[in-house]
Amino acid sequence: MKRRVLLFDVNETLLDLAALDVHFERVFGDKHARREWFATMLRSAFLLTITGPYRPFGDHFREALRQTAARHGIIVSADDAQRILSAVRRMPAHPDVRPALERLRDAGFRLAAFTNSTHEVEDAQLENAGIRDIFEVALSADDAKRLKPAKEAYERAAKLVGVPIADVRLIAAHDWDVAGALRAGASAAFVARPGTIWNELVERPDVWGVDLDDVAEQIIARDS
Amino acid sequence: MKRRVLLFDVNETLLDLAALDVHFERVFGDKHARREWFATMLRSAFLLTITGPYRPFGDHFREALRQTAARHGIIVSADDAQRILSAVRRMPAHPDVRPALERLRDAGFRLAAFTNSTHEVEDAQLENAGIRDIFEVALSADDAKRLKPAKEAYERAAKLVGVPIADVRLIAAHDWDVAGALRAGASAAFVARPGTIWNELVERPDVWGVDLDDVAEQIIARDS
Repeated sequence: MKRRVLLFDVNETLLDLAALDVHFERVFGDKHARREWFATMLRSAFLLTITGPYRPFGDHFREALRQTAARHGIIVSADDAQRILSAVRRMPAHPDVRPALERLRDAGFRLAAFTNSTHEVEDAQLENAGIRDIFEVALSADDAKRLKPAKEAYERAAKLVGVPIADVRLIAAHDWDVAGALRAGASAAFVARPGTIWNELVERPDVWGVDLDDVAEQIIARDS
Repeated sequence: MKRRVLLFDVNETLLDLAALDVHFERVFGDKHARREWFATMLRSAFLLTITGPYRPFGDHFREALRQTAARHGIIVSADDAQRILSAVRRMPAHPDVRPALERLRDAGFRLAAFTNSTHEVEDAQLENAGIRDIFEVALSADDAKRLKPAKEAYERAAKLVGVPIADVRLIAAHDWDVAGALRAGASAAFVARPGTIWNELVERPDVWGVDLDDVAEQIIARDS
């Protein structure tokens, strides 16, 4: 079987958002505010993906920070917002990430990062996490002006790596990202990182692992 | 100016979801779980609206209950789920609702309820809240097999009341519902009920009030 091109979601899938908890704990007095912020950001992104107009992911980032603060009865200063944004660019990779990516690369797969963040944020993230060199290319849904999980985002990514959508496999720790990839006609893999909860209304992908090593092993078995 | 047909969102806009808190407190040991459940339900509905396939709102209701329970490390029994569903059908109207609806009806507006819930749930809700008689018709996004805020839902509703979409005004306590209506070409009104937070990435409607009485007054001034 022809090896699929592997597209890796970045936030949570590769990078550890728990690194932000200390900032949310300081600003909100509650480290759980980080999950609330991330969920609010997704909701804002989903809403504008349904209704339009397109806004870059950073706008949802900042608006979700403002909404989460309003819900907690506080205002996040420009300095604190900047500090959280800086921390987003310096999140570490999960420990299983580099070995698994190298294993897949060495098995002959073409690897690309593929995120809703803009190229500017993505490049900083991958560079700071020390994994930029492993990827052939760093793709952003911003290229399609449609965020994941809209099918145009995946279709554009496939086009940019020069293969039909059916020759792409999207790897993510998010049910919504997997759902979008499958519905666009790609394959997918779910990384069931601790604390993730799957939406049972979404079709399950054929690859499902507890970490990226587990997922890499299954991909090598299926797609090589 | 020609009077617009007024479409009223039901959950939160007309009916008071706080009536569910006692059930969430009993089952989850945390009445805030009600807001978490509702946000999870919206996220699931938005996801499938973007990616498909269509599922009726009740499926998102039940899946969100399961996900919220999983996040809290519990399992909701079939009995408890049934009890919450029954409570959803028996939520009271906010105190400002009936007087404001009567005022609008008496001013000559055509009034319709318009919800993501199925007709079966909607009819029970409006009947139990004692406001079914005020509406000319009770519409459901299920008729379009596309949930709000997808534009097809509003277009179908306009068609069912027999007017162009521009002659419709959607009234909701949700930014996402207002966003969908405006993007579909309708007018809208936001009811800023206590605790609601507006998404600043969404265009503001020309009518914005603190309760339904305030909104009714502005609608009469603008659309009569």
